[in-house]
Amino acid sequence: MAGNTWGRQFTVTSFGESHGPAIGCVVDGCPPGLALTESDLQTDLDRRRPGQSRYVTQRREPDQARILSGVFEGETTGTPIAVLIENEDQRSRDYGKIQQVFRPNHADYAYIQKYGRRDHRGGGRSSARETAVRVAAGAIARKYLRERLGIEIRGWLAQMGDIHLDCVAPDTVNDNPFFCPDPDRVAELEAAINVLRRDGDSIGARIVVEATGVPPGLGEPVFERLDSDLAAALMSINAVKGVEIGDGFDCVRQRGSEHRDELSPEGFLANHSGGVAGGISTGQPVRAALALKPTSSITIPGRTVDIAGEATEMRTTGRHDPCVGLRATPIAEAMLALVLMDHWLRHRAQNADVTPPLSPIPGDL
Amino acid sequence: MAGNTWGRQFTVTSFGESHGPAIGCVVDGCPPGLALTESDLQTDLDRRRPGQSRYVTQRREPDQARILSGVFEGETTGTPIAVLIENEDQRSRDYGKIQQVFRPNHADYAYIQKYGRRDHRGGGRSSARETAVRVAAGAIARKYLRERLGIEIRGWLAQMGDIHLDCVAPDTVNDNPFFCPDPDRVAELEAAINVLRRDGDSIGARIVVEATGVPPGLGEPVFERLDSDLAAALMSINAVKGVEIGDGFDCVRQRGSEHRDELSPEGFLANHSGGVAGGISTGQPVRAALALKPTSSITIPGRTVDIAGEATEMRTTGRHDPCVGLRATPIAEAMLALVLMDHWLRHRAQNADVTPPLSPIPGDL
Amino acid sequence: MAGNTWGRQFTVTSFGESHGPAIGCVVDGCPPGLALTESDLQTDLDRRRPGQSRYVTQRREPDQARILSGVFEGETTGTPIAVLIENEDQRSRDYGKIQQVFRPNHADYAYIQKYGRRDHRGGGRSSARETAVRVAAGAIARKYLRERLGIEIRGWLAQMGDIHLDCVAPDTVNDNPFFCPDPDRVAELEAAINVLRRDGDSIGARIVVEATGVPPGLGEPVFERLDSDLAAALMSINAVKGVEIGDGFDCVRQRGSEHRDELSPEGFLANHSGGVAGGISTGQPVRAALALKPTSSITIPGRTVDIAGEATEMRTTGRHDPCVGLRATPIAEAMLALVLMDHWLRHRAQNADVTPPLSPIPGDL
Amino acid sequence: MAGNTWGRQFTVTSFGESHGPAIGCVVDGCPPGLALTESDLQTDLDRRRPGQSRYVTQRREPDQARILSGVFEGETTGTPIAVLIENEDQRSRDYGKIQQVFRPNHADYAYIQKYGRRDHRGGGRSSARETAVRVAAGAIARKYLRERLGIEIRGWLAQMGDIHLDCVAPDTVNDNPFFCPDPDRVAELEAAINVLRRDGDSIGARIVVEATGVPPGLGEPVFERLDSDLAAALMSINAVKGVEIGDGFDCVRQRGSEHRDELSPEGFLANHSGGVAGGISTGQPVRAALALKPTSSITIPGRTVDIAGEATEMRTTGRHDPCVGLRATPIAEAMLALVLMDHWLRHRAQNADVTPPLSPIPGDL
Repeated sequence: MAGNTWGRQFTVTSFGESHGPAIGCVVDGCPPGLALTESDLQTDLDRRRPGQSRYVTQRREPDQARILSGVFEGETTGTPIAVLIENEDQRSRDYGKIQQVFRPNHADYAYIQKYGRRDHRGGGRSSARETAVRVAAGAIARKYLRERLGIEIRGWLAQMGDIHLDCVAPDTVNDNPFFCPDPDRVAELEAAINVLRRDGDSIGARIVVEATGVPPGLGEPVFERLDSDLAAALMSINAVKGVEIGDGFDCVRQRGSEHRDELSPEGFLANHSGGVAGGISTGQPVRAALALKPTSSITIPGRTVDIAGEATEMRTTGRHDPCVGLRATPIAEAMLALVLMDHWLRHRAQNADVTPPLSPIPGDL
Repeated sequence: MAGNTWGRQFTVTSFGESHGPAIGCVVDGCPPGLALTESDLQTDLDRRRPGQSRYVTQRREPDQARILSGVFEGETTGTPIAVLIENEDQRSRDYGKIQQVFRPNHADYAYIQKYGRRDHRGGGRSSARETAVRVAAGAIARKYLRERLGIEIRGWLAQMGDIHLDCVAPDTVNDNPFFCPDPDRVAELEAAINVLRRDGDSIGARIVVEATGVPPGLGEPVFERLDSDLAAALMSINAVKGVEIGDGFDCVRQRGSEHRDELSPEGFLANHSGGVAGGISTGQPVRAALALKPTSSITIPGRTVDIAGEATEMRTTGRHDPCVGLRATPIAEAMLALVLMDHWLRHRAQNADVTPPLSPIPGDL
Repeated sequence: MAGNTWGRQFTVTSFGESHGPAIGCVVDGCPPGLALTESDLQTDLDRRRPGQSRYVTQRREPDQARILSGVFEGETTGTPIAVLIENEDQRSRDYGKIQQVFRPNHADYAYIQKYGRRDHRGGGRSSARETAVRVAAGAIARKYLRERLGIEIRGWLAQMGDIHLDCVAPDTVNDNPFFCPDPDRVAELEAAINVLRRDGDSIGARIVVEATGVPPGLGEPVFERLDSDLAAALMSINAVKGVEIGDGFDCVRQRGSEHRDELSPEGFLANHSGGVAGGISTGQPVRAALALKPTSSITIPGRTVDIAGEATEMRTTGRHDPCVGLRATPIAEAMLALVLMDHWLRHRAQNADVTPPLSPIPGDL
Repeated sequence: MAGNTWGRQFTVTSFGESHGPAIGCVVDGCPPGLALTESDLQTDLDRRRPGQSRYVTQRREPDQARILSGVFEGETTGTPIAVLIENEDQRSRDYGKIQQVFRPNHADYAYIQKYGRRDHRGGGRSSARETAVRVAAGAIARKYLRERLGIEIRGWLAQMGDIHLDCVAPDTVNDNPFFCPDPDRVAELEAAINVLRRDGDSIGARIVVEATGVPPGLGEPVFERLDSDLAAALMSINAVKGVEIGDGFDCVRQRGSEHRDELSPEGFLANHSGGVAGGISTGQPVRAALALKPTSSITIPGRTVDIAGEATEMRTTGRHDPCVGLRATPIAEAMLALVLMDHWLRHRAQNADVTPPLSPIPGDL
C-alpha cells in the first residue's frame, strides 16, 4: 500500500494537501450504534486548530468537519464514515522561492527524490495540516472507548527545551495554549516562546499521553504488539523523532529489581512498563512519551540546494510555530485512541469467547 | 490479522514456541535470482545464538536454519522461502511453579488475560527465542540490500547501565560477546555483568543501528513512513521500551538552527534527522537507537499473584541473561534490514518510472 | 478490515450512501506524473450514469466528479486522489414502507442482521449508486494502463434473457444504451425491455469484458492470482452471481486436447484460458464474463416479512431498472482496469529487475 | 503482498514446491481453546490424497501433517499453527524435457515471464500438490465452525463432461473416488475415465459446495463481500475457470419474479441467491459451484515453444489425472470453510455488540 490507510480493523484513509481544496478521511470499521454528530469531532479539532493563540501559527482555519456518510439518524451504521474539512485560509501568495529551493530538514527534497515532483504550496501533503483529519478520526474512536469501555485518554506537555513540567494539575491542561499541566509554569513557557520569536528560532518538545481503563489483552504479538503499533502511530506524526513506552530510555540505567512491576491481588504495585507486557496490555494505564523536533521553518538563514542542485540559502518566512510540539497533544491523544480502538476490535475478533481463569487485577494499587 | 506476519511487500510470517518442536518463518515476496544458501542465514544466526559466552544465557541451541522452499539451484525463485529451526535444548524439567504463578513483568499474565491459556514452557511464544527467525529472515533482506543496492547495516551496544560506549572501532563489534564498539571498554562490561550475576539482578541497554548507502525515496507517507515502520519493527523486539530516529529525545532541547540538517551540492552537512524527512529516506545514513529494559528473570524474589489470584512470591531460576540487550544487536540489524527491504520494493511499485529533476546529493559531506 | 478498501498497491477506499450528501473514494498508490483532469473521469461516469435512456432507471444525477487532492498542475503527484460526487436527485419522499419491510432478495434483511440497523433511504450503502465511484477510480487506472502499457479494455452485453449477442461490431457498443455489440439486434433488446416494463418484471444479463495488450507476468500465486482477484472484483459488483475466466463453465464439457492453448513462436494458437495460466497473465487477451441476476425491485408483489418478523407483502415502486445488467458494462470494465493496475504495480515491486530468457510471444497469432 | 497469505483475520500462509523437501502452511488467528490434533487434519487430507484409486494420479504421498506450533496440551493457544507435510514420493527422474519446453496451458511459460526462472520439478509451486496445505488449514476452520457454530460443509461432483449428477445421496459422497453423490452413476464415471485413459485425453468437471447453519451477517460490503471472497477463494484453486453463487449463470435467463427468494416468518421460501444478499450471508445455505478445466497434461502431443522461443512439440508423460476435478471436492470444501471462518471472526470484530431488532428467520422453510 502507498501508506495513506492506517489500521487493520478500524481504519483511517487520509487525503489532502495543505493548500488544496480540502483534506479529509474515511473511517471504516466503526461499530454501528455509536451516537455521533459533527460536534463530537469539533471539540478535539478546536483544541488542535491553529491561530488560537499568539504562540502558534497564525493561519486561521475554522476546521469545520463535515460528515458525509456512515451516520444515519444520529448513529453510526457500520458503513464508512467520510469526514471532509475544507481548506479556507490558503493565502494566495508567491511560492516561487519555496518551489525552487529545498528548505533544510523539510520533506521537500525527499518528496522530489521519491515522486519526481511535489505540491509545494504550504508543504502540500507533508504539511502538519494533515493531522487535523487524524484528530477527527481519533475523536470517533475516543468516544467509543469512553462510552463502551470507560477508557479515558489525556496528554500534556512534559518538556519544552529545558523546561520540565510535572503533571500536577491534569484538569488545567486545556486551559492554556501549551497543554501545560502545571498552571504555575505557563508564564515561563510564554517567556521562552517570546525569546524564540525574537531570535527567529524554534525548540523541541516532549509530550506524554496516557489511557486509563484499558482492559488487559489488547495487542497482537509478535509483530503487531500494542506498543509496536503505538510506536508507529506516534512516530507517524510530523516532527516526531522518538517514542517511549513506560519508562522508555530510563530503562537503560535501571536494574531489573527496580524496573519490574510487581503484582498483588489488589493491583499492580508499579507501572514502569507503561501498561504493556509481551506486547499485550496488562490493565495498567497505557503510557507513552514522544519527542518532537524543533521546526526547521525559522527565519535564521540556512544553507541548502535548489532544484538545479546548486548551493543557495533559505530563510523561511510566513506563518509558522516556534514550537510545533505545542499543538501535538491532541494529535498524540488521537493516535493513542486509534491504536486502542483498532486493537480492541481485533482482540475480540479472535478472543471474543475466551474466559480467563482469573479476573483482571486492577491496573493501579 | 493476528499479528504474526510482518511487512507488506516483503513479508515474514513467524511461528513457534520456545519449547515446541521448532520455530520458523515464511518469507514471501523476495525477488527472484538472489543467490542464497543456508549458510547465508547462519552467519547472523550464530551472532545471535545463545550459549556462546558466559555472559549470556547458557541454553545451547545449534540454531541450524533449514530452507524448505523458494530456492532452486542456489537462487531464489520468487516463491515463498520457508525457514525451519528445530528446537533441541528444551530441558525437560518441572514447570510447575512457572505454570501456576505469573512472573512479574513477564508476558505470562497478559497472555492469560488475552487467550485464557498459554504455553508456559520457557515462555512459549513470548520467549526471545522467536527472534531467531527474524535474524534468519533479515539475513535474506540484508544480502539483497548489500548485493543489489550497496546498503550496509551495522549495530552496536551504545550503553549498558551507566556505561556509555562510543563507536570508536566499528570493525571490532563482532569480536566480543557484547557487540561493544570500543575494545578498551570490554573489560568494564565484563566486570559489570559479573556484579549483576552475583547480585542476581539485571540491567538495561541501549543499541544503535545504522544503514549506509540507502537511496533517497524509501517510505510511504503519511502512515507508513520509513521512521514509523522502523519504530514499530524495533519496538516489536522483546524488551524494547523506546525508539529514537536520529537525535531522538535530544531534539527536545535542541533549537531549530542547531537541529536542521543543512544541504550542499557536495552532501548533507549534518545528520540530526537520522536519514529520514517527512517519513522518506533522504540518502543520509539511516540511524536509530533502541532501549531494552532489564530482564525480569532475576533471582531476587518478587511479589506477584498466582493463577487463583492469590498473593505469592516468585524467584526465577534457570538459564537467563543478566542483560538481554547484549544479544539484541543482530536482531535490531535484522529488523532494520527488513524495513528497508520492504520499503525498497514498495517504493518501486509506485515509482519505478520516476526520474527526479536532480541527482541525489551525497548523504554525508 | 471492514471491506471498503479495495486493492493492495493501487487502492480504492469507497464511501457513501445512495441518499446521503455524497459518495466518493480515495485512490491511493497511483504513480506520479499521470496527466489527469476531472474530465478524464467524466467519460466513463457518463457511460454509467442513470437517466440517460428510457430503458434504465430515471433517477437523474449529473454525477460530476470533483478531484480534491493528489493532482497538482494537471498531473498526479503520488499522493492520494480523493474523488467526490455529490448526490443531487435524492427525491424527498416517504420511505415508511421500505423502512419497515424487507424487500425480497435485497440486502435489507442481511444489513439488519449484520449491523442491527440500516440507512434505508434508496438502499443506502447497498445501492448500485456506489458503483459510480468504482467507475471514477477505474478511469484513472484505465488511463494509466492505456498510456503507459498500451492496454485497451472494453466490454459488451453478451446476453439478456434468451437473447445471445455476438461481438460483431465492437466500435458500436457505446452507440446504444445497452452496450450491445451488434447494432442489428438493438431493436430486439428494446422490445424485450418494453415487455418487462409492461409486466412489471425484470431479467438477468451476461456481460463480457476483455483487455488486450496485457503483458505476461501479472498475478501473484497462489492466493492472489490474477483470475482470483478478477473473480472477486467482478463478484463484488451488485447483482453479480457468476464469473468466468476464458471458457469458464464450458470447460466442464471440454477435453484437454481441445481446451489447451497451444503455443507457436508467432503467438498463442487459441485463447480458451482467457489469458491466465497458473494465476499469471500469459500475454493473451484477458477475458472474463459475469452473470447479473434480475433485479428484485419489481412491481409484482412478493411475500416477505417486516421488521417485527411478521408476514407481509411487498411491491417495489419508484425508479428502477428492468435489467440492472444493462448498466454494468462500464462498471465491469472499471473493475478489470483496477485489477490489472494493482497487479502491474505489485508485479514490478517484486520483479522489476527480472529479465526472462525469452521475449514474450504474441498473445494472438 | 506476493500472494501466499490468504485471509485477513484467520490467515493461511502457504509455502512449498511439489518436489522440494516439504510443503506447509502457517495458520494465524485461530481462536484459542479449540481441541486439535494432527488426526483432525488427516481425515480431509486423506480424502484429497493422490494414489488412492486407479482413477487419479498414482503419485503416492502419505501426506502426514505435522503440527509444529500453536497447540498445547491438545488445544489451540491463539498463536500461529504451523503445519508441515514432507514430500516423500519425489521420483528421481530426468526433467530435461520439461525444463526446456513449455507445456501448453500450464503455468510454465507464465512463471518464466514473471520470475525469469522456475522450479520445473513436477510443476514446482504451480503444482496441485500445494492444495494439500489448504485442506489441512481448512480442516482447522471446519472443526471450529462445526463445534462452535454448528456449520456443516459438504461438496460433491455435479458434472463431469456430459455426465450430470444430482445430489441424491449426499451421505455416499465419500464412498467412491469421484465424490459422486449418486451411487447408481459411479460405474458411468468409471467407464468415462477409462475411455479418457485410453485416448490419452482429459475432461473438465463441475463441483458444488454448500454450507448449512451459516448465521446471517457474514460478509463485508462493499469489496470484501462473502460472495466476492468466496469467488476469489474458489478461483484460486488450480484449474478452476468459473465460479457461481446460487443460481449463477442461470440468472441470466431468469425473471426477477422467479429469481427473488421470498421470505416468510417460517423461513426463506427459496434459495436462488445461494445464501448471500448484498454480499452478506442471509442464514440460507451458502451454495457455490466451480468449473475445473480439463488438465493439459495429456499424452496427445501438442504444439508449443521451447525456452529459446523455437517451435516444438510436447507430450506429457508421467503420473497425472484424466480429470483433475475429481480430487477438487475436499479442496473446495476447505476454501469454503476458510472463507466462512475468516468472515465470522471479522464480523464479530465490528459487530459483537449488535442486537438486531428481529430474530433470524430460518434459512429453509
